[in-house]
Amino acid sequence: MNLTVLGSQGAIPKLGKYSTSLLLNISNSNILIDCCEGVQHQLRKYKIKLSKIDIILISHAHGDHYFGLIGLISTVSLLKRDKKLIVFCPTSVLKIIQSHIKHSKMRLNYDLELKSLNNQSEKIIFEDFNFIITAFPLKHSVYTNGFRIEEKKKRRKLLLNKAIEFKIDKVYFNKLTKSENVLNQDGEEIDYLKVTTEGPKSKSFAYCSDTAYFDKLADYIKCVDLLYCETTFLEKDKDKALSTLHSTTTDAANLANKGAVKQLLIGHFSSRYDDYSNFLKEVKVIFDNVILSEEGKKIQV
Amino acid sequence: MNLTVLGSQGAIPKLGKYSTSLLLNISNSNILIDCCEGVQHQLRKYKIKLSKIDIILISHAHGDHYFGLIGLISTVSLLKRDKKLIVFCPTSVLKIIQSHIKHSKMRLNYDLELKSLNNQSEKIIFEDFNFIITAFPLKHSVYTNGFRIEEKKKRRKLLLNKAIEFKIDKVYFNKLTKSENVLNQDGEEIDYLKVTTEGPKSKSFAYCSDTAYFDKLADYIKCVDLLYCETTFLEKDKDKALSTLHSTTTDAANLANKGAVKQLLIGHFSSRYDDYSNFLKEVKVIFDNVILSEEGKKIQV
Repeated sequence: MNLTVLGSQGAIPKLGKYSTSLLLNISNSNILIDCCEGVQHQLRKYKIKLSKIDIILISHAHGDHYFGLIGLISTVSLLKRDKKLIVFCPTSVLKIIQSHIKHSKMRLNYDLELKSLNNQSEKIIFEDFNFIITAFPLKHSVYTNGFRIEEKKKRRKLLLNKAIEFKIDKVYFNKLTKSENVLNQDGEEIDYLKVTTEGPKSKSFAYCSDTAYFDKLADYIKCVDLLYCETTFLEKDKDKALSTLHSTTTDAANLANKGAVKQLLIGHFSSRYDDYSNFLKEVKVIFDNVILSEEGKKIQV
Repeated sequence: MNLTVLGSQGAIPKLGKYSTSLLLNISNSNILIDCCEGVQHQLRKYKIKLSKIDIILISHAHGDHYFGLIGLISTVSLLKRDKKLIVFCPTSVLKIIQSHIKHSKMRLNYDLELKSLNNQSEKIIFEDFNFIITAFPLKHSVYTNGFRIEEKKKRRKLLLNKAIEFKIDKVYFNKLTKSENVLNQDGEEIDYLKVTTEGPKSKSFAYCSDTAYFDKLADYIKCVDLLYCETTFLEKDKDKALSTLHSTTTDAANLANKGAVKQLLIGHFSSRYDDYSNFLKEVKVIFDNVILSEEGKKIQV
């Protein structure tokens, strides 16, 4: 699992800096989380093929999180995409995209599956063989979801020597890695625990933007390996965070602590700040393992 | 009058290259012509203040010409614009923008005047003391307008020595520059031609994108100082130009010739080409005074 930061900023982009977008690569699938204006340019800049995106998640209907969606939908069609693209977004964003398609008479080459989110509590929105995506409500000025994306439990690792020693036919190896007991060549049941060890650990990521802090949020993101939490404001501007329902450095750090996450990534910085080192400093007082969003930064989870 | 190229490409942008947008500075007003995705980033890159834009013209409802409009509308509001912004666009684009504003509950600080274009023939759409904007129909796969923007006739220049010699009181100098005769201190009528010379020449610009060539187009752009004409395709791909209702190098060159324009700017290049020198070569066979669109290029008219 790895994550690429495509945009680090809040509502107002800056020279060379974009509003919030992240690309998560998980089990060979690519999930784009929020689409700032110019996200297709950012993907190109960091040599990520537009055709590789499988799923897009849109947190809410504020422009800095979705203005780049229609451009991407259109460009991948012009680039002759033929595989399905699934977009999860609030109903409001779905209506905006439908308006673009209708009024500009856009014809798409591929199957665009626009899935409207209107859950008011935690809900699994996607599941395949490898991972699960859960949406959960955030606290912002418009209907907003956070997302948790988790790899499914990975298969156990076969100990080949042990399997031979226990006289197990190779047609059963697959079953063993799926934690099933099998019969050996002598007709004896062999416990999978005897011939396998634990597989690689499943990784998890959560995304919280935009949101004010609230206690239940820690339950939604509990123990993830990497948490993205917006920190639009420094602590000195917490009155602004309160009135606009955003998080401060302290909010994000407290959330990371309470949720017992391994690592914290912060971003969605207000355009009023130029020196981002203060964000790091303020978070580190409470939670040490923190990274700053920067365009092009890649984080291995 | 000067023009800045913000994007040189057709529908599919490239690394570092944007779809079509131009900024025209005329008599201290700034007119943005078409808004590709990322146009606000391009304006920043070329140090053009977003607040300076007075009028936006949108030719048609294809994404490469309008996807950046909503981002600009939103960002200038966040940057606390308070003066009016006038946008002329097809009804389809107007409906898309209204859908964004409604569904994302966008609140704007300033007066956004969205003016729907649905003229089927040449029509003056804007006029102030200094310039006139005329929209005219192009020939494309959706409803599309070209635009002609002309400085009004400039005042004559006073010959001060002559005015004194003819005993004209200075309160009449203003009238003389407006080509009016006046009475001098002896009560004699003085012909303005005797005490003024012609003022600076009024400049004009025309924009044709996207369009197939048609004969009447030359009338709409007759004798402009600078003509922007799209050349999506080289001559070898003229079958593609015909089927998609775009222009080739030859079409643009013939138009410039037939319209007796002074200078031709070409752009909206298809992403299939990497070497743009062929565009110049092909045009120059027919029309010599031609410039290539390139991001950041500034043309003094």
